[in-house]
Amino acid sequence: MALMKSLYARNRDNMTVKKPVIWTKKDLLGLEYLTKEEIELILDSAASFKEVLARPLRKVPTLRGKTIVNLFYEPSTRTRTSFELAAKRLSADVITIQRESSSIQKGETLIDTGRNLAALKIDIIVVRHNSSGAAVMLSRALDISIVNAGDGWHEHPTQALLDILTLKEKRGRVRGLNVSIIGDIAHSRVARSNIWGLTKLGANVTVCAPKKLIPAGIEKLGVNVTTNVDEAIQKADAINILRMQFERDEKKAFPSRMAYFKTYGITEERLKKAKKNIIVMHPGPINRGVELSAEVADGANSVILEQVTNGIAVRMAVLYLVSTAKKEK
Amino acid sequence: MALMKSLYARNRDNMTVKKPVIWTKKDLLGLEYLTKEEIELILDSAASFKEVLARPLRKVPTLRGKTIVNLFYEPSTRTRTSFELAAKRLSADVITIQRESSSIQKGETLIDTGRNLAALKIDIIVVRHNSSGAAVMLSRALDISIVNAGDGWHEHPTQALLDILTLKEKRGRVRGLNVSIIGDIAHSRVARSNIWGLTKLGANVTVCAPKKLIPAGIEKLGVNVTTNVDEAIQKADAINILRMQFERDEKKAFPSRMAYFKTYGITEERLKKAKKNIIVMHPGPINRGVELSAEVADGANSVILEQVTNGIAVRMAVLYLVSTAKKEK
Amino acid sequence: MALMKSLYARNRDNMTVKKPVIWTKKDLLGLEYLTKEEIELILDSAASFKEVLARPLRKVPTLRGKTIVNLFYEPSTRTRTSFELAAKRLSADVITIQRESSSIQKGETLIDTGRNLAALKIDIIVVRHNSSGAAVMLSRALDISIVNAGDGWHEHPTQALLDILTLKEKRGRVRGLNVSIIGDIAHSRVARSNIWGLTKLGANVTVCAPKKLIPAGIEKLGVNVTTNVDEAIQKADAINILRMQFERDEKKAFPSRMAYFKTYGITEERLKKAKKNIIVMHPGPINRGVELSAEVADGANSVILEQVTNGIAVRMAVLYLVSTAKKEK
Repeated sequence: MALMKSLYARNRDNMTVKKPVIWTKKDLLGLEYLTKEEIELILDSAASFKEVLARPLRKVPTLRGKTIVNLFYEPSTRTRTSFELAAKRLSADVITIQRESSSIQKGETLIDTGRNLAALKIDIIVVRHNSSGAAVMLSRALDISIVNAGDGWHEHPTQALLDILTLKEKRGRVRGLNVSIIGDIAHSRVARSNIWGLTKLGANVTVCAPKKLIPAGIEKLGVNVTTNVDEAIQKADAINILRMQFERDEKKAFPSRMAYFKTYGITEERLKKAKKNIIVMHPGPINRGVELSAEVADGANSVILEQVTNGIAVRMAVLYLVSTAKKEK
Repeated sequence: MALMKSLYARNRDNMTVKKPVIWTKKDLLGLEYLTKEEIELILDSAASFKEVLARPLRKVPTLRGKTIVNLFYEPSTRTRTSFELAAKRLSADVITIQRESSSIQKGETLIDTGRNLAALKIDIIVVRHNSSGAAVMLSRALDISIVNAGDGWHEHPTQALLDILTLKEKRGRVRGLNVSIIGDIAHSRVARSNIWGLTKLGANVTVCAPKKLIPAGIEKLGVNVTTNVDEAIQKADAINILRMQFERDEKKAFPSRMAYFKTYGITEERLKKAKKNIIVMHPGPINRGVELSAEVADGANSVILEQVTNGIAVRMAVLYLVSTAKKEK
Repeated sequence: MALMKSLYARNRDNMTVKKPVIWTKKDLLGLEYLTKEEIELILDSAASFKEVLARPLRKVPTLRGKTIVNLFYEPSTRTRTSFELAAKRLSADVITIQRESSSIQKGETLIDTGRNLAALKIDIIVVRHNSSGAAVMLSRALDISIVNAGDGWHEHPTQALLDILTLKEKRGRVRGLNVSIIGDIAHSRVARSNIWGLTKLGANVTVCAPKKLIPAGIEKLGVNVTTNVDEAIQKADAINILRMQFERDEKKAFPSRMAYFKTYGITEERLKKAKKNIIVMHPGPINRGVELSAEVADGANSVILEQVTNGIAVRMAVLYLVSTAKKEK
């Protein structure tokens, strides 16, 4: 409540005359389903929580007594750890359940698992699943809160939110910025969530990939499309470089690592033609010498580690907001 | 202490004139080793803890500073998660140790592991092991509390306790109820613990399975035996449907899934011949279309999800009681 | 702070006139890098924390709000559990990350992982890695605290500290004691850390192993060398028996289990020729009938389980001290 008030106060200080946005959703399923105002509320809330991370004692009692289950059907150290830390810093209890999603574990079983967790009287399920729509399906079946930590090629909303928070911190705004997303757009939930979020906040989004890795009809989401990485970089205020997941490239749709680096890899050479203060983002883990050179990854334009820090803040904000909504229901 | 008092008060309100039962055992090894009064004390205590689960802040400081180790030699998401949540809601610290029980890890090694945990100054070991008697063996070797979370085909006492708590909540009593346990009785620790608990509390227990899956001499435990599922259902106040663990059926003692469903599967058709308000229980996870139809699993008579909730309450009660005993020793 | 003061007070009571030692290092990388005084400060601090373990409520708020990551590239139930318990008893939050160290995960990736964890604003990384120098490498790359939980054949400082604490408790001092380390010296980080620690504190150290398992030049560390176990035992105040890791003996440098037991195994027969009150230590887990007989392992001279208890105290002390140093930087 105190935090909510400070968020409103912040809006007042910023001379915002519009009515304060109140979070009403029990879930975070994707940026497709949020309004511009809701996205901004998460970002403002995350900025508040980020102050907590700068303290020596990085913990607040906000969610004391609440229980969060990390239900991960795909292995993920980074996202799982970030959510687990976010929960612990809110003083929630966290339990991690790592499952193999064998062919038997179909939709029905996911819902059975969800119903069982709800019967255990937990408060939030953070779900990572290899099927697009898994989080939405759980959300419909259950009264408790669902947070999508990545579902198939669909959405990975907290990743996009942390990308956008980083952008906003660096530039003070999102509206009007040119953002290019470079890499395997076709199989990327990160790209999809970023496109939804960035376009809603008024950024100009360009996607750039080899032709095979651009999904048909992507322009309908309001983005520019190019296969030329130099073109993608040229006017960009920020580039978001996706990880090339060669380990998942079963259909051999990818060029070789070396060929990809040659044609699409972000190097200092390439960045010479870009704006001087271009922001270089990457959701990690990075493949040095594949999507980008080591110099760029560790260079002055890179905000890759700030993205990691912002991930905690965003996830604290999301866990907090969905809990609040539930309580007021 | 406050809880203990409220339990006695509850007894007084119920006009119970007998002396309040005090828990004296450091362990929970099986319902075979408990008196009727001790079982009732756990159930009453669980009912008190269940009230905690209905609060918005579902946490009590009862076991703050205590450490519980979940020592699981068999994979188990459900029971492990339930114990972990129970411990956290009592404010205990929990550590989970998942081990493979290879051929090398024999009894001696289990005891060495137990001794090491005791030397780490933990308070309770919750143990799941594929050898019958594992919990009893640990209990004899160690001064700290042992809670049996399932040992071989021997006992799974907290599962039976949650089944019985559910039954008692629904009917107000256990004495005189007709309860049929249907499924692979031979290899089921759930069946065995239920038989001990239900018969001690005065229920009439029937076990029902294909002949090969009824252990010889089971009648000596005071149960009726039938291979006819319609007979098992007919007069039952409650049925407890066991999971058919086809994945463990190495000796091919089971009929096919389809054959089993035809002859033993609980369907709405079959339930028409049962009492109208028959209680349908299942320890989960359910195999829809094998032990029971989806309609029955999700139907009005099913209490399967309430069993899950009661599992937390029962495990909180057990962890609390064994801790108390230890302290007073 | 209160603890620090009590440590100084303890020194005063012991008539120590020297200035109190203040811990200044952000890391614990190995005993090679510590002064005698720093080692003693850890031991004194551990003795204070050990008192906490004797309380019914074995928890102090010392590190509340701090986050510790257990980053384990090798499987380890014992050390991981001990660190996790130590952290929880200091009221810190702990997250465990278990990774496979495949051929891809080279040094660079370890540092990337470390940088990511630092960006998550955690306080201490406890790292176990199969490469010698992993902890030192992380320490140089990161500002946060690194605690070495075993790196290749290099060091396992907390194991040696708990061995030395046990020795000191039993004899009241370390200086002048004859300590023999028996077993696979060549591949043992435990041996190496013990040698550094014991020699710094003034013990006379002997190492004993089959010739193939004694590293060349080990005498330069100031130890006596023998291949004769009876000689190693004869004048020893304590023996530290290393685990023979047959499962890792890829080069077949080891004798057979039976041959090893015959020539090097510690039996009651062998101990007859030793000092009556000889202390028998083993870092665990023990191989009964390989490095030592069951009688010796469970006998009156064995302090193996006390070592386990001291492990918690030592790790609490280390986590506390490195946190303090960081704060004062």
